[in-house]
Amino acid sequence: MDFSGRHIMSIQDFSRDELEHIFKVASDMEKYVKTGSDTLKNKILASLFFEPSTRTRFSFTSAMYRLGGNVLGFDDPEMSSKAKGETLVDSIRVIDSYADAIVIRHTIEGIVELAAEYSNVPIINAGSGTLGHPTQAMLDLFSILREKNTIDGLTIGILGDLKYGRSVKSLAYGLANYDVKLVLIAPELLRMRRDILEDLSEAGKSIREVPYLEETISDLDILYVTRIQEERFPDPSEYEKVKGYFIISKKSLKSAKDDLIVLHPLPRVGEISTDVDSTKHARYFKQSYYGLMVRMALLSLIMS
Amino acid sequence: MDFSGRHIMSIQDFSRDELEHIFKVASDMEKYVKTGSDTLKNKILASLFFEPSTRTRFSFTSAMYRLGGNVLGFDDPEMSSKAKGETLVDSIRVIDSYADAIVIRHTIEGIVELAAEYSNVPIINAGSGTLGHPTQAMLDLFSILREKNTIDGLTIGILGDLKYGRSVKSLAYGLANYDVKLVLIAPELLRMRRDILEDLSEAGKSIREVPYLEETISDLDILYVTRIQEERFPDPSEYEKVKGYFIISKKSLKSAKDDLIVLHPLPRVGEISTDVDSTKHARYFKQSYYGLMVRMALLSLIMS
Amino acid sequence: MDFSGRHIMSIQDFSRDELEHIFKVASDMEKYVKTGSDTLKNKILASLFFEPSTRTRFSFTSAMYRLGGNVLGFDDPEMSSKAKGETLVDSIRVIDSYADAIVIRHTIEGIVELAAEYSNVPIINAGSGTLGHPTQAMLDLFSILREKNTIDGLTIGILGDLKYGRSVKSLAYGLANYDVKLVLIAPELLRMRRDILEDLSEAGKSIREVPYLEETISDLDILYVTRIQEERFPDPSEYEKVKGYFIISKKSLKSAKDDLIVLHPLPRVGEISTDVDSTKHARYFKQSYYGLMVRMALLSLIMS
Repeated sequence: MDFSGRHIMSIQDFSRDELEHIFKVASDMEKYVKTGSDTLKNKILASLFFEPSTRTRFSFTSAMYRLGGNVLGFDDPEMSSKAKGETLVDSIRVIDSYADAIVIRHTIEGIVELAAEYSNVPIINAGSGTLGHPTQAMLDLFSILREKNTIDGLTIGILGDLKYGRSVKSLAYGLANYDVKLVLIAPELLRMRRDILEDLSEAGKSIREVPYLEETISDLDILYVTRIQEERFPDPSEYEKVKGYFIISKKSLKSAKDDLIVLHPLPRVGEISTDVDSTKHARYFKQSYYGLMVRMALLSLIMS
Repeated sequence: MDFSGRHIMSIQDFSRDELEHIFKVASDMEKYVKTGSDTLKNKILASLFFEPSTRTRFSFTSAMYRLGGNVLGFDDPEMSSKAKGETLVDSIRVIDSYADAIVIRHTIEGIVELAAEYSNVPIINAGSGTLGHPTQAMLDLFSILREKNTIDGLTIGILGDLKYGRSVKSLAYGLANYDVKLVLIAPELLRMRRDILEDLSEAGKSIREVPYLEETISDLDILYVTRIQEERFPDPSEYEKVKGYFIISKKSLKSAKDDLIVLHPLPRVGEISTDVDSTKHARYFKQSYYGLMVRMALLSLIMS
Repeated sequence: MDFSGRHIMSIQDFSRDELEHIFKVASDMEKYVKTGSDTLKNKILASLFFEPSTRTRFSFTSAMYRLGGNVLGFDDPEMSSKAKGETLVDSIRVIDSYADAIVIRHTIEGIVELAAEYSNVPIINAGSGTLGHPTQAMLDLFSILREKNTIDGLTIGILGDLKYGRSVKSLAYGLANYDVKLVLIAPELLRMRRDILEDLSEAGKSIREVPYLEETISDLDILYVTRIQEERFPDPSEYEKVKGYFIISKKSLKSAKDDLIVLHPLPRVGEISTDVDSTKHARYFKQSYYGLMVRMALLSLIMS
């Protein structure tokens, strides 16, 4: 399977076979996490973060370094207003002489695809409006696979802001490749968009929507938690009513299966209490480590 | 020819022989652009951009990485106000312990020369008031040479803001080393400064000044376009009158020679329409690639 | 002596034997300053500067590069407000997957210790409220040792803001390991805190406090100068009265010993006149070079 030169735009561009190939390579990368390697020696990644994201940026940078490569770039919200459409295309046509791959995070819809159209080197979407966040979805799937040795057959709860959350949309499409039961846990206002639910139904997924975690906690093998932002609620009192239900604590997990795994894309802002950190369920820090392996795999696949 | 330890301050410090040596080394660098090299392994470039310039900064960084070296630095307009005169000299006397060469861009007149006076390691001027932008001029000359196999004998049009433009001044002095015909294309308000014209005349250059491109387009082998900034015109209506003449489109080039080459230091802000990008004349993106080769050459020459 | 995995939190955590081991390794590092080495090949340092410090950041970065390692991070005062307590702990638990050591500078009291509690990789305190600035103290001691071949037996003057200065506190505790005479030179308002003086007395140090340099200049082997900030004085006229006494010029040193060495943690803001730079006493630029060696030693010791 040849990924050389391929853009990483959307999780929906990847078949199950391709995902499994990436996960196999990711597992092979584990030996390089501590020892490093010369796989990408003399290769350069341009890292263009028009929207800041310390964690994602560090993850790609670390992945590149562990493979012996180097990174140039910026991490600057102010660039976002400056670099629109044509200007970004011009930048890409310059930067593709300076780098062997380009990772971009941008707030503006469609701009990462536009960049990919003009670039001579592969582009990785590190989060953008329409396309979601494909490498996050891959690392979420990989985390599940590594913790459970399978994705098929699992009951997976996704909790939080399912309407606006970028990670959640990509994860749902990623899971559509597997034989899973999805339980979507969200307040009325933040339920997943109908068109995505239809896509998932068409893919033959079993989907259940519930308003509160307590209705389903005992069914779950995986609980994927994301943030609920107060500002999504037109009426603050609406938020106050539901927020307690969406803060996961040790107590929320008391009727969980023994081997329930809790994931979160991070950063969290209070939606998982720190008393969960030391339980056997918490894997959200380990998830970052799995993410490093997945990004090492992707970088080596597209640049080799 | 030994450039080891030499400061790169102004294009006027370089003889034709020296420029040709740099261009020869730059051409030799092409093989390393994709494969990389260990020429500057363990060497460090300090990159101090007191005035931001993503493209120039990335170009030097990529050049350093391609040669196996490393880069530390900042890219911060706020540093500019903080780091004046004495303070910068102190910084340089610290940083020259941390790096093997220092590249500086600064808005303040004379500050790069001041740094060079105190530094134990070579300083590269990446754009400053008085000294122009010598590495840009070198890459402009190199681009012409690579595209035409010669610089001597060419008719070269330079269009845009010839009064204030930093790149233009350095390019003119660079071209003074060659047997070229210069055509300076600018509105009355933005004509090249008299003292520079006199220097060029003394160097025996044939110079013609014309107000509009259409008067000379059919003569040109090279058209070098730069930006005209609206804010240079005291009366905005003056700008409105001329601006149409200084936006180059496919149509502006209809009576051009078949092998006319269009260059631009980038970024452009509308002064070349995107319909030119796909013509056989456009080389402004390739120019960045040539720039990488020139900067690799300079870095390896001064640090070896 | 095994430093592998050890946090570098406070100078007070280090015994004289340990300091001497670090200084021995630092001297061994000199050969790598120019040639580089592969000691930390494939290793990554995360450099988290919540409070900006170009010099300290560059020093650690250069040290890492000289040893063949790599650096990721940020240098951003805005992060400081965002990343408090729990959030920083979460970040550390992610970043410790991406790096082999983490260097942190932060304004908030206690936050570097908190990070160390949760990190799987060693943390270096690069300046924080309570803990002072241990690597600065080590490089100060090392500078004295290199210039004088001994620390024992010296008379060491410390001048400036002894009450609030971060470097000064760490240096005083570092010197407590040696048989030195300390002369503390400060205006009444900025005298060293009583508890620190008591700690030093208990450690058997001979301490003399004087208000002005001229009373002691002829006794000193080392004069360590730090900044006095005008804003420390409630009444500006108080500052005006004393400031002249705390600007060191060539004239201030006229009755100094021939081999007096002047040190300063830099940056200076006028407290040493530039006419001192060319005297035989000045070593504050060399001090940065010694600092590079000390940081190379520490990085290699904790990551090997």
